Amino acid sequence: MAYQIPEKLKKLQAYEPVTEVYKVRLDANESFIDLPDEIRKEVLEAISQVEFNRYPDPEAKELCQCFGEFFQVDSRLLTAGNGSDELISLIVQNFLEPGQTMLTVSPDFSMYGFYAQAAGAKVEILDKQDMVLCAEDMIQKARETGAELIIFSNPCNPTALKLERQDILQIVAQTDALVVVDEAYMDFSEGSVLDEIENYGNLIVLKTCSKAFGMAAIRLGFAAANEEITRILKAAKSPYNVNSLTQAAGCAVLKHREYLQECTEKIKESVGELYAGLKALKEKKQQIRKLYPTSTNFVYVDIKAGETVFEGLKKAGISVRFMKGYLRICAGSQRENQEILQSLENLLQ
Amino acid sequence: MAYQIPEKLKKLQAYEPVTEVYKVRLDANESFIDLPDEIRKEVLEAISQVEFNRYPDPEAKELCQCFGEFFQVDSRLLTAGNGSDELISLIVQNFLEPGQTMLTVSPDFSMYGFYAQAAGAKVEILDKQDMVLCAEDMIQKARETGAELIIFSNPCNPTALKLERQDILQIVAQTDALVVVDEAYMDFSEGSVLDEIENYGNLIVLKTCSKAFGMAAIRLGFAAANEEITRILKAAKSPYNVNSLTQAAGCAVLKHREYLQECTEKIKESVGELYAGLKALKEKKQQIRKLYPTSTNFVYVDIKAGETVFEGLKKAGISVRFMKGYLRICAGSQRENQEILQSLENLLQ
Repeated sequence: MAYQIPEKLKKLQAYEPVTEVYKVRLDANESFIDLPDEIRKEVLEAISQVEFNRYPDPEAKELCQCFGEFFQVDSRLLTAGNGSDELISLIVQNFLEPGQTMLTVSPDFSMYGFYAQAAGAKVEILDKQDMVLCAEDMIQKARETGAELIIFSNPCNPTALKLERQDILQIVAQTDALVVVDEAYMDFSEGSVLDEIENYGNLIVLKTCSKAFGMAAIRLGFAAANEEITRILKAAKSPYNVNSLTQAAGCAVLKHREYLQECTEKIKESVGELYAGLKALKEKKQQIRKLYPTSTNFVYVDIKAGETVFEGLKKAGISVRFMKGYLRICAGSQRENQEILQSLENLLQ
Repeated sequence: MAYQIPEKLKKLQAYEPVTEVYKVRLDANESFIDLPDEIRKEVLEAISQVEFNRYPDPEAKELCQCFGEFFQVDSRLLTAGNGSDELISLIVQNFLEPGQTMLTVSPDFSMYGFYAQAAGAKVEILDKQDMVLCAEDMIQKARETGAELIIFSNPCNPTALKLERQDILQIVAQTDALVVVDEAYMDFSEGSVLDEIENYGNLIVLKTCSKAFGMAAIRLGFAAANEEITRILKAAKSPYNVNSLTQAAGCAVLKHREYLQECTEKIKESVGELYAGLKALKEKKQQIRKLYPTSTNFVYVDIKAGETVFEGLKKAGISVRFMKGYLRICAGSQRENQEILQSLENLLQ
């Protein structure tokens, strides 16, 4: 019998990022601030020193040091990845045996389940009550399902809501699972558990340079965990997983603490403006059912006939994310925020 | 019961690339030729155009076009990866269900087994007879073991030997497995099966920019396969797996066909010189038991008391790879080749 493609693979659907060209791109929760010329020059200078014909530093030591200094974490407890995506995939593939259970929540970042399924794990989902994650429900569900691994984002993508620090630590302390907290959006808020990694043997915190730091292009994420977990992540990863260009660029940008903090503040201001604008619009337009308070760089909106609105925005050259009836709108520049608010005003009844 | 790290992970050993600093680095089969200033300038110019705050093109379309043009392959049949490593991991994880069987050979690239084990697959190994891979043995072993996936390098790392094109196609045609042929070193030789991907529903060919093309730093590999397999690989991969810097740099370099061909020729000359030098040394030194003919940029040497020689070379500031009694020596510049030959002459009895 000749080779047959497995049925499961025939049905596999790709994650579908927006690839069309829009004048206003608010769909991928990127920063709206590109590198200023001065720092760009330093990045290029750093890249010009790369030995192109040689493999990268497998441990990305200098890069981990730069990142560790920024967040005041011991760099030996950091594992650099080709974006957090690679780290999520690495963690679920290695810390879950086939058939073991990963617990995540809904709604949350869809790729958790995607990578877990590729790893042959069983995926259990805790449905949030009105979008709010309850630590006690999570602990109970983890016990019921016997989950070996729990993963969720905090603050949450796509709801923009945040669970408090003590709730996160309660989950970590009161379950027998390895708990992976994806803090991709925590730079916009407070309550990180990054400083707790050495206090728990079952905690991994994921961080990214793609959001507040405006470096989505270079694909750079970090896993922070205690010494033993970090040793395993480093042993399990591809030897040269973070390329030399990203290592050079990451170091060059991460040295600019003040600049990165300013960017974060600007984005927070922008998301505040976007939220305020949407709130004002909600007063006028009944079609907006609910706005969720945001601890991130985006706003999550429950909107009637969301798909029509989504398509209308597309026609107006504005991309946002449409998810099961909700719109997830990333904060842009002042002009971009005004543009989407104006378009929404036109589109909504 | 508190969280326990799985026993399997506690024992996990990392791939151990050479990380010490040596004046002569012949251990990683890298090209000894770094980018010339002119092309480096073009690379930097391309990178200077990158929108750092935006995610990369998930399909790396322009990059695949550049690579496709170079090898005269339809770019729609190419999947770009964060090095071939990512593609190997992606393929074994997705095309093998946990418990299914991957067949590889020994000696060969050790990471095949590493990624397969992480994916929960069973690994079967065909031992080569005096380092030579026999197509018929492979076909028979695939039948005996019921292998769902076969993977091997051609030309082989570390033996430097090549299986002829018709033998490869015989394996592809006469087994029911998905056959992954890693052609990382094929640019130094002839007999690629890249032009056969549309003729077989069970063939994936892996290519890399890390060897002949001298771009190990940027981590760039490609999987070439028919339309259905390619669709699956693209659906299964991380959405933004190849960062924008690598995409920009890869395009800039791949446009220089003549330069890349010259590099390849220079490396072939160099490995010819290294081989000739080792052959002359073998006449004088009985400690060298066997030299294997090379279709790659390195030479594989069966040497008595290899570990002592390996350590002696290290002391002389020269890194090579020591593998189960054999030395794998990559071709370097003329000066580097002379240096290792001289050191070997001093070290051998």
